Amino acid sequence: MSRLSFNQITSGHASLAEVVDACRKNGVQWIAPWRHKLSAKPAEDARRIRDAGLKISSLCRGGMFPAATAEERRERIDDNRRAIEEAATLGAGVLVLVCGPAPDRDLDGARRMVEDSIAILAPVARAAGIQLGIEPLHPMFAASRSVVVTLEQSFNMAEPFGPEVGVVIDAYHVWWDPNLYASIERAGAKIAGFHVSDWIPLLADPLMSRGMMGDGSIELRRIRAAIDAAGYTGPIEVEIFNESLWRKPVEETLRLCAARFEEHVV
Amino acid sequence: MSRLSFNQITSGHASLAEVVDACRKNGVQWIAPWRHKLSAKPAEDARRIRDAGLKISSLCRGGMFPAATAEERRERIDDNRRAIEEAATLGAGVLVLVCGPAPDRDLDGARRMVEDSIAILAPVARAAGIQLGIEPLHPMFAASRSVVVTLEQSFNMAEPFGPEVGVVIDAYHVWWDPNLYASIERAGAKIAGFHVSDWIPLLADPLMSRGMMGDGSIELRRIRAAIDAAGYTGPIEVEIFNESLWRKPVEETLRLCAARFEEHVV
Repeated sequence: MSRLSFNQITSGHASLAEVVDACRKNGVQWIAPWRHKLSAKPAEDARRIRDAGLKISSLCRGGMFPAATAEERRERIDDNRRAIEEAATLGAGVLVLVCGPAPDRDLDGARRMVEDSIAILAPVARAAGIQLGIEPLHPMFAASRSVVVTLEQSFNMAEPFGPEVGVVIDAYHVWWDPNLYASIERAGAKIAGFHVSDWIPLLADPLMSRGMMGDGSIELRRIRAAIDAAGYTGPIEVEIFNESLWRKPVEETLRLCAARFEEHVV
Repeated sequence: MSRLSFNQITSGHASLAEVVDACRKNGVQWIAPWRHKLSAKPAEDARRIRDAGLKISSLCRGGMFPAATAEERRERIDDNRRAIEEAATLGAGVLVLVCGPAPDRDLDGARRMVEDSIAILAPVARAAGIQLGIEPLHPMFAASRSVVVTLEQSFNMAEPFGPEVGVVIDAYHVWWDPNLYASIERAGAKIAGFHVSDWIPLLADPLMSRGMMGDGSIELRRIRAAIDAAGYTGPIEVEIFNESLWRKPVEETLRLCAARFEEHVV
């Protein structure tokens, strides 16, 4: 029980006061607040938490670095500076980073934006006594929430820095990874937090969620070119599980596939 | 256009005859049939496809190897022997393998079952002139459809074998992988197929799908132990996004978290 921390999002409709009170009454010693649940005066939130005898395991969250323009990226960094200040005011040792999705199809470019942003923020965090925790998200969120999707990747991003940059491991996000245990071993002293929940079947079936080439986020042409370069010259299957396509006449679907294949694949 | 193959599932309600006819009329030269759409006489299906001037890029699908009992695992292997026969009868060069989920929480054990099954089937495939194509599925399907979730992993499984075992790369399943391009380069001559579609937002929000520890598939205790062994002794957050938990009183949720934390984490 001395290691249990209640992440506030687990009761997402409750106020910070309600969560703090519940922790206090039930002998839970750690809490992880979310920024959108803080008041306008984080110093008062800090006092409330401290007065209840609670410690803060992390503040959720900073990140969301990639953006289409330099100005937007600067705004994201400014927001992270504020998050570092809030973490320092609260006495949270760790600020969790959910790094954000790409603004376009360029995953590598977005990943560079994440690295560049962390390089700017690391000295700010160090000066404030805060550790930035790079959290890999499940690849299911690669298009919507985070271009950082494996522990190996987040460790590689954290490694060049001192203790002011670490990694946060959430079991829900990384459990499927064949390299998980090796990556955990390698992460070692960089581990800045550990979150648990469980994987249950998705609430709607994602199997039927495939899109037509060109309607989504995948760099199809780049992948195709890499596969070409690796020496494969065989057929390329269009395989789309999507109920709305299934309702169309076969020929209409097929013609659309052919057009998009030309436009986005070859 | 000479490389375009129409995977039959893209028009999932159509018969093989309708798909073949549509391909023929539209100058598509390749098709990938699914086993559940074959007739009782695959030789006639083969003739139908051949008579339309079509070639078969792959047969979908074999696999689904892990199971709780030895008898069930033998049945899965027998079904794959039939799939290899069907592929040979059809004149399909490749049988796509969707390897299957674990029957319990033991991911490594299920992965060994996959490897053991492929070792049994490889000589059968070689004798029949069929290539088994190990397809990594998106980690989103790790609990429901495949314990093989990265290209690196499927390549490692294929590497010990001759050309009778290769890998199938579906862009939808692997696009998020930070090691994708290195893995493609490494896969080289093992690439047995390439599927394209696109990633669009999931049709329901998976963000709210987290379960309580113990209700799902994650080996929480093992991960926790590995993190311990790596030297991390800090707090462990419970962080569960789930609307049904959000509707409960905070204290009820918190007590459940504490009980499950004890039962499944520490």
